[in-house]
Amino acid sequence: MRKSRLIKAGNFSLGGNSPVRVESMLKSSLDDVDSNLKELKELERAGCELVRMAIPSRKALKVYEILQKETSLPLMGDFHFSSLLVKEAIEKGMKMVRINPGNLRESSLKDLVSIFKRNEILVRIGINAASFPNPLPPGEEGAKEMVKILREWLKPFDKSSHSLVICSLKSSDVKTTVLANQIFSADSDYPLHLGITEAGGGLEGTIKSSVGIGILLWQGIGDTIRVSLTGPSTDEVKVGYEILKSLGIRKRGIEFISCPTCGRARINVEEILAKVKEISQPYAKELTGLKIAVMGCEVNGPGEAKEANLGLAGGKAYALFFKKGKIIQKVKKEKMIDIFKEELKKLSKERKSC
Amino acid sequence: MRKSRLIKAGNFSLGGNSPVRVESMLKSSLDDVDSNLKELKELERAGCELVRMAIPSRKALKVYEILQKETSLPLMGDFHFSSLLVKEAIEKGMKMVRINPGNLRESSLKDLVSIFKRNEILVRIGINAASFPNPLPPGEEGAKEMVKILREWLKPFDKSSHSLVICSLKSSDVKTTVLANQIFSADSDYPLHLGITEAGGGLEGTIKSSVGIGILLWQGIGDTIRVSLTGPSTDEVKVGYEILKSLGIRKRGIEFISCPTCGRARINVEEILAKVKEISQPYAKELTGLKIAVMGCEVNGPGEAKEANLGLAGGKAYALFFKKGKIIQKVKKEKMIDIFKEELKKLSKERKSC
Repeated sequence: MRKSRLIKAGNFSLGGNSPVRVESMLKSSLDDVDSNLKELKELERAGCELVRMAIPSRKALKVYEILQKETSLPLMGDFHFSSLLVKEAIEKGMKMVRINPGNLRESSLKDLVSIFKRNEILVRIGINAASFPNPLPPGEEGAKEMVKILREWLKPFDKSSHSLVICSLKSSDVKTTVLANQIFSADSDYPLHLGITEAGGGLEGTIKSSVGIGILLWQGIGDTIRVSLTGPSTDEVKVGYEILKSLGIRKRGIEFISCPTCGRARINVEEILAKVKEISQPYAKELTGLKIAVMGCEVNGPGEAKEANLGLAGGKAYALFFKKGKIIQKVKKEKMIDIFKEELKKLSKERKSC
Repeated sequence: MRKSRLIKAGNFSLGGNSPVRVESMLKSSLDDVDSNLKELKELERAGCELVRMAIPSRKALKVYEILQKETSLPLMGDFHFSSLLVKEAIEKGMKMVRINPGNLRESSLKDLVSIFKRNEILVRIGINAASFPNPLPPGEEGAKEMVKILREWLKPFDKSSHSLVICSLKSSDVKTTVLANQIFSADSDYPLHLGITEAGGGLEGTIKSSVGIGILLWQGIGDTIRVSLTGPSTDEVKVGYEILKSLGIRKRGIEFISCPTCGRARINVEEILAKVKEISQPYAKELTGLKIAVMGCEVNGPGEAKEANLGLAGGKAYALFFKKGKIIQKVKKEKMIDIFKEELKKLSKERKSC
């Protein structure tokens, strides 16, 4: 496991022994402050821990000032092209900044770093393979080039001992992204922000991000993640947590286990799973970490879902309820959902009395 | 890259230099032959390359016999508990069989192996951590135990030099699955079937499978994959291909790149991406490997999606069309979709004339 340096900014921490963080980015139009506020609230409810927002103009900076007052979530400004705008943002109290070496002049960096240092600004240096005027090729060559550029940009930070720095190396190609992060992390302790850029729409984006981020997390690399999806920002947070949960890195809500069904299934697993999830939703927070199983048949069901704290499996005219592999009840199918509700209530009571 | 042994059965090959295969399993009720036939056709259209079907009874065997005559896809019978049923299936001409060491008596194995050998049966020994009467614990201990059992079961196959064998080591826990496959593959050249069991419903199952299978494929491990989802079997195939595509292991259909949108976006990326995908659908086969991009803004769009064969990016009142980063047209927004159709047709013509 790679040990990254701990970074603190206000109540927010990253790297070191902090949990791997889940980020997203505001998608609402900068013309609509209310939409941005609503999105921020939704992101907070979804468990987002750091929110980035594009600052392409002075107008955006004004929106930022309003949002910052209204939210307790850390807000990071995302800058491209203009170092002037970065400076103005810091004057207005911005504490977290992402700069893109692909479109910011390197000559402006020295000046910026002293401002960062003076104002204790948390900076993400975010390399994006596609942002450069001369495209970086995919694969190992491109990955090495990305790392080389990042190391170059880190020099003035190291020189002035400004250590509030997060790094990221992204490409829309999973391989390139993984290689770049492996190479860089081998001899650096900067916290790494992980993500696959332009990952695409729902399913494709989810899979690309899960594969790419999953591979790196398995290797112990990664301190904060952002799943880029063409879709609501709350989906990015949801997918982010699912990736972390799949590797046991973070727990969040109830975990559902269900068989893929086959010719042996005696209940409509998909339908019942949907119902069970709906019923369990209000318990998500208090029963975090609980495992609930919906299995198609009684022959394999209770056995294959032994780790479930509560499970049900379809029989011919009845359903079996089980806990940790042990059958606790056999009920008529039509009563299945009612009994499930009762059992869930019991579990909630048990937890509360613990 | 791990090199596995090549396995051939009829026209079907696996391992060696074969592409990583995509599998699924029939989910229709065994009481309904027509549904099974329909599902098989759908799986074939989706690109499924090996179909497993549960054989819990003689009745199922009869269904198998009908299906086998109607499909050109290799069908693998999935057996639990009964070695007698395995023998009957082979008598009826079944050529591919999956057995589960968790619920088949080891004492029946020697007898079975000689039948497998005599009839040139392709066998998958499918270890499932949850199938055992005594539960295997998650984590490294359980992973080692799974591998130990698998090696035990392989002995009679090795002894009789029956080499038509595929192995799998599955758990509903991603970590355990990855560890077990790493340990086993380190000193064995048997082709490996990968999957996460009871992965759960749509999003969770997709993410768990993407992370687990993705990690192993990155390490060069895996010759055939099955994504277990509570949902249509064709979804399993779709997700399977997306996982392989994300690592550049297989190409299938058109690849879409799109930005996650931010405050800078000048078009509704999600909406336009959906339209673009719909329009492109009929071209999926002929334009396999093509990259199409939908980007929110003209400032970063063409640059960040430089690898796209065709892309569009939103401007204030217009949209830009670009190919490999070069702007080819600037059109009014209301004409965007029509122009996209035209450009796609052109690309199709170009490919055909190649």
